[in-house]
Amino acid sequence: MAYVDIVTILAVLQFIVFGIKVGGARGRYGVKAPATTGNEIFERYFRVQQNTLELLLCLLPALYLCSRYLNPLWCAVLGLVYLVGREIYAATYVKDPAKRGLGFALSMFPILFLLLGAFVGALRRVAGF
Amino acid sequence: MAYVDIVTILAVLQFIVFGIKVGGARGRYGVKAPATTGNEIFERYFRVQQNTLELLLCLLPALYLCSRYLNPLWCAVLGLVYLVGREIYAATYVKDPAKRGLGFALSMFPILFLLLGAFVGALRRVAGF
Amino acid sequence: MAYVDIVTILAVLQFIVFGIKVGGARGRYGVKAPATTGNEIFERYFRVQQNTLELLLCLLPALYLCSRYLNPLWCAVLGLVYLVGREIYAATYVKDPAKRGLGFALSMFPILFLLLGAFVGALRRVAGF
Repeated sequence: MAYVDIVTILAVLQFIVFGIKVGGARGRYGVKAPATTGNEIFERYFRVQQNTLELLLCLLPALYLCSRYLNPLWCAVLGLVYLVGREIYAATYVKDPAKRGLGFALSMFPILFLLLGAFVGALRRVAGF
Repeated sequence: MAYVDIVTILAVLQFIVFGIKVGGARGRYGVKAPATTGNEIFERYFRVQQNTLELLLCLLPALYLCSRYLNPLWCAVLGLVYLVGREIYAATYVKDPAKRGLGFALSMFPILFLLLGAFVGALRRVAGF
Repeated sequence: MAYVDIVTILAVLQFIVFGIKVGGARGRYGVKAPATTGNEIFERYFRVQQNTLELLLCLLPALYLCSRYLNPLWCAVLGLVYLVGREIYAATYVKDPAKRGLGFALSMFPILFLLLGAFVGALRRVAGF
């Protein structure tokens, strides 16, 4: 389980770093709080962070539920794929939002696999075998 | 606890489906990333997803904390009410945002009940009886 | 652990209260759903809630992971600092967004300390001592 915990900590830190980059882009492109629009490049940094917020909220329960039923080490590996996918997503989105597809898929599919594993595990528990 | 896990998986999947619908609305109404405004109908799909993000982050700790102290099966039933409430919320919000009240209440009240149950349970634990 | 649970419940309730204030500001400043812009003061309430959404998603895993490895009571105290920081953040942001720094720092640093504690604990577990 400690491997799953380390992946979780890295995923939260990655999200915090994306948030720090949004703060940096606020200064660089002159977007003063509370505004979140007004500069295209700022909005890209902001959307990277917001999309990661959405996915992180899905990843964490998926990761821990799947670890409860299946091999935690495999779950941690899927979490690593998510982390790499998010880095690709962030790098491509800031350059060109139209090219965010690969990074999105690489971070979304691990979540879906983890949810599937958790679902099968929970159903087997309910069915009693 | 497996019932609570299944409700959690369904709630995360429901949120992912709302996200897919936002993606679909992006294409249909011509709202290109990183924009999140510019078309009223797109904005409704987007706000349904964003509001569900907020509530899902409240539901998951409420669900697991309450399950730790009270009957997990009852907690799972409250989670089902949340799921139904969110479906009603999404369907009514997209048609007419002014009519989102019922669906919102049906998904918010289970969260408040679960938080209350968890709070009473935790206080009793602290008090030692 | 019950102290950590109580802090979690309070943090979720605090976030719900921030959401209720956004709803109130919608009515008071005439910002109709699905819009989230159009009035500066409304946008401040909205950004307080959104920023709290981001931080709450970081706090909860940090709190529980750190509690797994280190003294839960100390983790609960750090959680209390977060709660106070968020109240200061909300109060100052609504008055003047430029002065949100102190409240932000007071709610972000406990999260970083908890993540650090969890990271050290998980690494020690993996290293086997």
